[in-house]
Amino acid sequence: MTSTPLFAPPYYAVIFISLLPEHTEEYGETSGEIYELAQGQPGFLGVDSVRDAGGQGATISYWRAEDHVTNFCKIATHRHAQQRGRETFYERYEVRVAKVEKEYAWRRKEDGVGEYVKK
Amino acid sequence: MTSTPLFAPPYYAVIFISLLPEHTEEYGETSGEIYELAQGQPGFLGVDSVRDAGGQGATISYWRAEDHVTNFCKIATHRHAQQRGRETFYERYEVRVAKVEKEYAWRRKEDGVGEYVKK
Repeated sequence: MTSTPLFAPPYYAVIFISLLPEHTEEYGETSGEIYELAQGQPGFLGVDSVRDAGGQGATISYWRAEDHVTNFCKIATHRHAQQRGRETFYERYEVRVAKVEKEYAWRRKEDGVGEYVKK
Repeated sequence: MTSTPLFAPPYYAVIFISLLPEHTEEYGETSGEIYELAQGQPGFLGVDSVRDAGGQGATISYWRAEDHVTNFCKIATHRHAQQRGRETFYERYEVRVAKVEKEYAWRRKEDGVGEYVKK
């Protein structure tokens, strides 16, 4: 439920939008393993991941440089294939690799107002 | 439940990660209006939006050029403020503006296998 902090641009985001027809235990294990794998990779900054009850999901992982993205994509693809073959999990997905140029955040403060945050 | 198609890079993505403590009718109206507003703006390509039962949300809107993003951000901020003031909706959010450099998609086919799509 916690989202990522700011990371100071420029850095990279991998936007993964997917539709999962059913949430199986095996899928949960594989995606958990890939997340653990990501955390151990060079250049990993953080990840935001949301999936709704209908199976639509958005996972955005953040990386310091483009080389780190390339490295992770190779590893994730390989691991997925090892596990079972991704064809069995998803109905569809889109992957986008994007360079983050600007960012800001907003946080509610205790007084109920809020403040903008920049890094 | 349908995700966006591919748009052919380069283009821009606005990644909006938010936490909504409670989903009110008023919030639904405002976010619906902002989506309608986006669709009518120059350079709008599409949007992916997911929110889970815990209130964590990810909305990624896609735009042809950086100027279109700047224009939309101004309008969305203004509309939000007009409605009520965004402080009342969110617990926190992060906004990231990123240039999409690469993309690909995967679609399940009728035979249960699948195919990669590039534009």
